[in-house]
Amino acid sequence: MNIRSIRKRITGTPASGTSSDFGLGNKIARKPGTRLINNDGSFNVIRKGRSVFAPYQQLVEMGWSQFLLLTVGAYVLVNLLFALLFLIIGVESLANVDIGGPLWKRYLDCFFFSVQTFTTVGYGSVAPIGITANALAAFIALFGLISVAMVTGLFYARFARPQRLILFSEKAIMAPYGENGGRSLQFRIANKRDSNLIKLSARLVLTWLEDDRRHFAPLELERDNVPLFPLNWTIVHPITKNSPIYGWTKQNYCHRHSELLITVDGYDETFAQSIHINNSYIHEEIEWNARFEPMYFEQEMTTELHLDRIHHFSFLEEE
Amino acid sequence: MNIRSIRKRITGTPASGTSSDFGLGNKIARKPGTRLINNDGSFNVIRKGRSVFAPYQQLVEMGWSQFLLLTVGAYVLVNLLFALLFLIIGVESLANVDIGGPLWKRYLDCFFFSVQTFTTVGYGSVAPIGITANALAAFIALFGLISVAMVTGLFYARFARPQRLILFSEKAIMAPYGENGGRSLQFRIANKRDSNLIKLSARLVLTWLEDDRRHFAPLELERDNVPLFPLNWTIVHPITKNSPIYGWTKQNYCHRHSELLITVDGYDETFAQSIHINNSYIHEEIEWNARFEPMYFEQEMTTELHLDRIHHFSFLEEE
Amino acid sequence: MNIRSIRKRITGTPASGTSSDFGLGNKIARKPGTRLINNDGSFNVIRKGRSVFAPYQQLVEMGWSQFLLLTVGAYVLVNLLFALLFLIIGVESLANVDIGGPLWKRYLDCFFFSVQTFTTVGYGSVAPIGITANALAAFIALFGLISVAMVTGLFYARFARPQRLILFSEKAIMAPYGENGGRSLQFRIANKRDSNLIKLSARLVLTWLEDDRRHFAPLELERDNVPLFPLNWTIVHPITKNSPIYGWTKQNYCHRHSELLITVDGYDETFAQSIHINNSYIHEEIEWNARFEPMYFEQEMTTELHLDRIHHFSFLEEE
Amino acid sequence: MNIRSIRKRITGTPASGTSSDFGLGNKIARKPGTRLINNDGSFNVIRKGRSVFAPYQQLVEMGWSQFLLLTVGAYVLVNLLFALLFLIIGVESLANVDIGGPLWKRYLDCFFFSVQTFTTVGYGSVAPIGITANALAAFIALFGLISVAMVTGLFYARFARPQRLILFSEKAIMAPYGENGGRSLQFRIANKRDSNLIKLSARLVLTWLEDDRRHFAPLELERDNVPLFPLNWTIVHPITKNSPIYGWTKQNYCHRHSELLITVDGYDETFAQSIHINNSYIHEEIEWNARFEPMYFEQEMTTELHLDRIHHFSFLEEE
Repeated sequence: MNIRSIRKRITGTPASGTSSDFGLGNKIARKPGTRLINNDGSFNVIRKGRSVFAPYQQLVEMGWSQFLLLTVGAYVLVNLLFALLFLIIGVESLANVDIGGPLWKRYLDCFFFSVQTFTTVGYGSVAPIGITANALAAFIALFGLISVAMVTGLFYARFARPQRLILFSEKAIMAPYGENGGRSLQFRIANKRDSNLIKLSARLVLTWLEDDRRHFAPLELERDNVPLFPLNWTIVHPITKNSPIYGWTKQNYCHRHSELLITVDGYDETFAQSIHINNSYIHEEIEWNARFEPMYFEQEMTTELHLDRIHHFSFLEEE
Repeated sequence: MNIRSIRKRITGTPASGTSSDFGLGNKIARKPGTRLINNDGSFNVIRKGRSVFAPYQQLVEMGWSQFLLLTVGAYVLVNLLFALLFLIIGVESLANVDIGGPLWKRYLDCFFFSVQTFTTVGYGSVAPIGITANALAAFIALFGLISVAMVTGLFYARFARPQRLILFSEKAIMAPYGENGGRSLQFRIANKRDSNLIKLSARLVLTWLEDDRRHFAPLELERDNVPLFPLNWTIVHPITKNSPIYGWTKQNYCHRHSELLITVDGYDETFAQSIHINNSYIHEEIEWNARFEPMYFEQEMTTELHLDRIHHFSFLEEE
Repeated sequence: MNIRSIRKRITGTPASGTSSDFGLGNKIARKPGTRLINNDGSFNVIRKGRSVFAPYQQLVEMGWSQFLLLTVGAYVLVNLLFALLFLIIGVESLANVDIGGPLWKRYLDCFFFSVQTFTTVGYGSVAPIGITANALAAFIALFGLISVAMVTGLFYARFARPQRLILFSEKAIMAPYGENGGRSLQFRIANKRDSNLIKLSARLVLTWLEDDRRHFAPLELERDNVPLFPLNWTIVHPITKNSPIYGWTKQNYCHRHSELLITVDGYDETFAQSIHINNSYIHEEIEWNARFEPMYFEQEMTTELHLDRIHHFSFLEEE
Repeated sequence: MNIRSIRKRITGTPASGTSSDFGLGNKIARKPGTRLINNDGSFNVIRKGRSVFAPYQQLVEMGWSQFLLLTVGAYVLVNLLFALLFLIIGVESLANVDIGGPLWKRYLDCFFFSVQTFTTVGYGSVAPIGITANALAAFIALFGLISVAMVTGLFYARFARPQRLILFSEKAIMAPYGENGGRSLQFRIANKRDSNLIKLSARLVLTWLEDDRRHFAPLELERDNVPLFPLNWTIVHPITKNSPIYGWTKQNYCHRHSELLITVDGYDETFAQSIHINNSYIHEEIEWNARFEPMYFEQEMTTELHLDRIHHFSFLEEE
């Protein structure tokens, strides 16, 4: 076994000179048709072999419906458990509960009393009698307050998470560019909301399969940052002779399973935090010989930006 | 249709070499009299064609009176709805409510009971009887707690938003500068409060209309940053021969519908967050042959900064 | 009036080439004996002429005792007002309140009922009767919840503020340095707590009065940053021939009313936020011919840092 | 005493040209067998001589079990104190408390009433009578609300702290590298969770003891940053002729008590905050002639990353 083959198997990172791969490595996703970055910006990678206990992250990242369901579920479950304890203590330690009632009725009474204590409503129509019931009620009330403190923290964390406020055009296009029949690869982005995004910068990397290896090449941009972002921003890679994709045909893009990887960084003023968005266009999402249609228009004293027009483009007749 | 005209219509961003436009593009606001940046720092752009559902951002960004009104409104509405459910269940499931009373009276009793549960006050003068009423009350209490958790998160987010703590002079001035009868374009800023703003930097761009196109030119500053900001900072663009506005007359500024675009960046120590403020002076807000008057004065053992003097300037006699 | 004298009076900022003044300007504090930066890091500047309404900032920045007093005061005041409203409505609308009692007794009963509603305790021993009292109670409960939401936000904001966790030696010293009888200006800092401060950098500027003007000169450091900060950091300016204070005597420091201005920047990991600390040593706080004594010692398997020794130095015999 | 020896004893920081020491200084931990950075990333330094009162930091940094225990303990203690006050006032001021009962029984009744007020449960089965008891109850309710506000703030601060989400391989390895029988020092890291870590950068410094002094030398990396971090990252120092450890044997590493110091910086998107992680490998944790085994595998349409394989390596036969 020679050194080179060993090295190839050792290093998970590529050799020097390929730092344009965004940290993905040249051995990832070598099966044709495999996408590197999903449409929601996540990576097409599954993590296995280790259950990481990070409940807070999961509670912050899960969807709202799942989060609310979990909250309600925990609320019911916890109070069912506390109700069981009251049942064990004996319902005679709760004023105004019918001692002679059937078990399920007494259990429900305990449950509703537990709920009234947990939420600190405390009507008092049912009230604890004796030390054990009072002590349990004192614990439930504290437990309830701590739970509310936690849920409050979670709500804020969920609210304050960086939002995906940048709208991407559905398609990238291969458009005419410059004087001499040149081309450029373009897509455009817009701020979904008002002026709270600033200092945007974009990076593009094209990746393709060749010789059972992933290749990565950065694409130079006509303009790679904007200080303010009131309108749309069309991100343009002019295909000059220095471009790694100079001379590629539509068939090349397809057969090489190419994917245009994009990272956009910026700063969200509303939440005073940096934002970072990944996206990608696979070869099927690149339209040839097209041009984007205008999406903002001058009015009397202002400018109107039509967000629904971000995806609008039209094909050009072949020259 | 030749390539050049196509390209002009395709790219929303300007060609290379014009990156001084702050990301506004050379086609924006080509109607004379249109302002690019409003006095509150927002852009003179209207977003259309897509209702973005971002309730949290809107709740954080709306004014205080609107926010409080919405809170009270939601509180009343939600409890009116819950009261309706109690009415449907039947008021006999609420202890101490007059079953024989008129409908509106019973509805009100249900409403107040709902409020007492939602807020977790729970006097107990009215209390739920039976499974359905108890279950509904348990749900309302949870709903109330979650609502409070949400409102708490919103309050903090509203508090912690970057504040507009920088005061700009109402006017920019065209002042004498240097030895040889030179001029400079000046305005000044001050920190409204004590020393919590640091690492300020400023960028100036002049924009004007010419040939039905917006032009943008960066203006070099005598000093473009200050590490600390205890006093006022007069931001000065010396009009040297290299300045893009060298030789402009007051008439030029007016006829070209020029606007001085300003971005100031800094760091707010109190909230440990970056701040970013936009502003602009249109040609009418630039005074010629004026000088700012001093706004801080030496006292016995300290220095007094008079914030109300930031707008004070006096005209100079023509030379 | 010639141009130069005008310009001098116009520009609040100094001419180019003096950007080492930290943004203080060369006209500040020209009275001998005036300090620029106080020992708590604040500027010796008083802001006048404009009352800035920024209640949140003030509530976050005030001391704890003042904040708690204000909270208690607002709590009492608000409930006294609500109690007045109940008194106006009539105490017959509150169950279990003695209608025939003296006014002050009825007022107190109203006050305690208001408190029980505001805090959502709601014993129910006193409970509202009728629409008006119930509606008022519903409003008070909402008001209470919103107040708690606000106070919770304020508590978190106060907790999360950047802390002043860096300890400075009380004195700067003028110590021997290098081979050839050289000197250096030194002081040292330490992290008051464990390893949560990283990426520290320091900047030094000496300021002095000469010709009725403030002068500022940056002092080059032997080392101006440390990535980690587990121990103390002695910040050293070697007085080489290039130093602006080369050849100064102790008398020079005194007569020129010199002050050593310091800014230290870093990152606090516990709160994931940047920190920035100002400090200064005036000439009286610089000791000549001294050396700092060691403040950390090797133990068997660890290193002990003695924070109380940070101020320890000893004088050297004159050479 | 000559100048040089004085200087050596004066400056806690090393002379210029050794800024690669991470701020640790060349006099730290000169006892063989002493580790500089512990496995949990903290420094092997004990802080003495000054008790810093920073309760918030301590409450945020302590473990969860300690925090919850402290919360429960404070809750019980505070209410026991308030109960004592009610006992002093006299239990006749609390409705429904048995005045003739034994002292412990009355104390417990006061305690449970205090708890019901503090948590704002307020059943009303026990209620205050008279001004003193009502005033005390009003204070307890406010105290309870403020406590909950504080605990809520603490919960959020604890949740929002930067997490240690990067997994390090247990061992660093000395692996073959390149064509000519070269070697490299390697270890690898992975993101424990999904794609919320971006912009990672790593810095390596080797430290060793020689001549009763700590030496520090930065190790150049094949790649020192990755923009995205979906998979593992193998950090590689190629041992070229320029490497400070060129030619070292396993015995050298051991006898010089060498330690590989690592800092990894990055940005956590979920919490929108910078992260910073320290780690180190001492000579015993470096395996010679080994190679890491692959830890990600191609599946049909995705890539599987096996986190449990991060520690897997195999020894190579000696060449």
